[in-house]
Amino acid sequence: MAEVRLREATKQDLDKIVAMLADDRLGSKRERYELPLPECYLHAFMAISADQNNELIVACRDNEVIGVEQITFTPYLTHQGGWRATIEGVRVSASVRGLGIGTKLIQYAIDRAKVRGCHLVQLTTDKQRPEALQFYQRLGFSATHEGMKLKL
Amino acid sequence: MAEVRLREATKQDLDKIVAMLADDRLGSKRERYELPLPECYLHAFMAISADQNNELIVACRDNEVIGVEQITFTPYLTHQGGWRATIEGVRVSASVRGLGIGTKLIQYAIDRAKVRGCHLVQLTTDKQRPEALQFYQRLGFSATHEGMKLKL
Repeated sequence: MAEVRLREATKQDLDKIVAMLADDRLGSKRERYELPLPECYLHAFMAISADQNNELIVACRDNEVIGVEQITFTPYLTHQGGWRATIEGVRVSASVRGLGIGTKLIQYAIDRAKVRGCHLVQLTTDKQRPEALQFYQRLGFSATHEGMKLKL
Repeated sequence: MAEVRLREATKQDLDKIVAMLADDRLGSKRERYELPLPECYLHAFMAISADQNNELIVACRDNEVIGVEQITFTPYLTHQGGWRATIEGVRVSASVRGLGIGTKLIQYAIDRAKVRGCHLVQLTTDKQRPEALQFYQRLGFSATHEGMKLKL
């Protein structure tokens, strides 16, 4: 397999990122992938890019976007004023699953968390994705918490 | 009971906030409450205050701080570029538990999430706190996700 490179996403990656988010059992019910992209995605991209505590990361192979994740760095008072990194929106293109791209994305986020001085990396994973739970457990994450959501 | 008021925390509230964080079964193992406060808490407070996507909220009664929470607003690409509010570090002073202060804090966070245009309010709660799980369920949260943590 050609080398996989991870980097911050640019506006030019957005079509492919949203296509990945929509090409997913749960994502297909809640995303709206059409070209040109709905403006809501562009607004969100601008907000993420403008925030130094948020990073949108893509995995690329031969200049093609094949994976995505978002990392959020948050300062907290708890744990003696410790920063945390939160990973969200991890997706890998259907055509390249099982090749370790997801592992590379998570390892990259862990490395970024260390660079940013975080004491903890955290994420929530939908209980409808048991294979994702096992994936994160293999990478060292523990399911010590309940992930609770309230839709507005 | 005198009226409970919720507002953004100031630096003058910090001693009392950290005292509350430390006066907790889990918090007592990981916080360091001594006066003057360790500088790490002041640094974290400054980082939170400087970030327009983070709000540290205190509940006060008769000008005494009796509760605290942190709300983080995050832009995401997922859910059609939807913002989320994340609640963390919720604590109520031991002397006033059971009086609805926690409910007021969460309701305040939900209201702030609506003002900020979020589509979702989320939090993780330690599986060692079953009473907290029930508290959040009564307020409408669903434990649809696993909350996974990796200590660095």
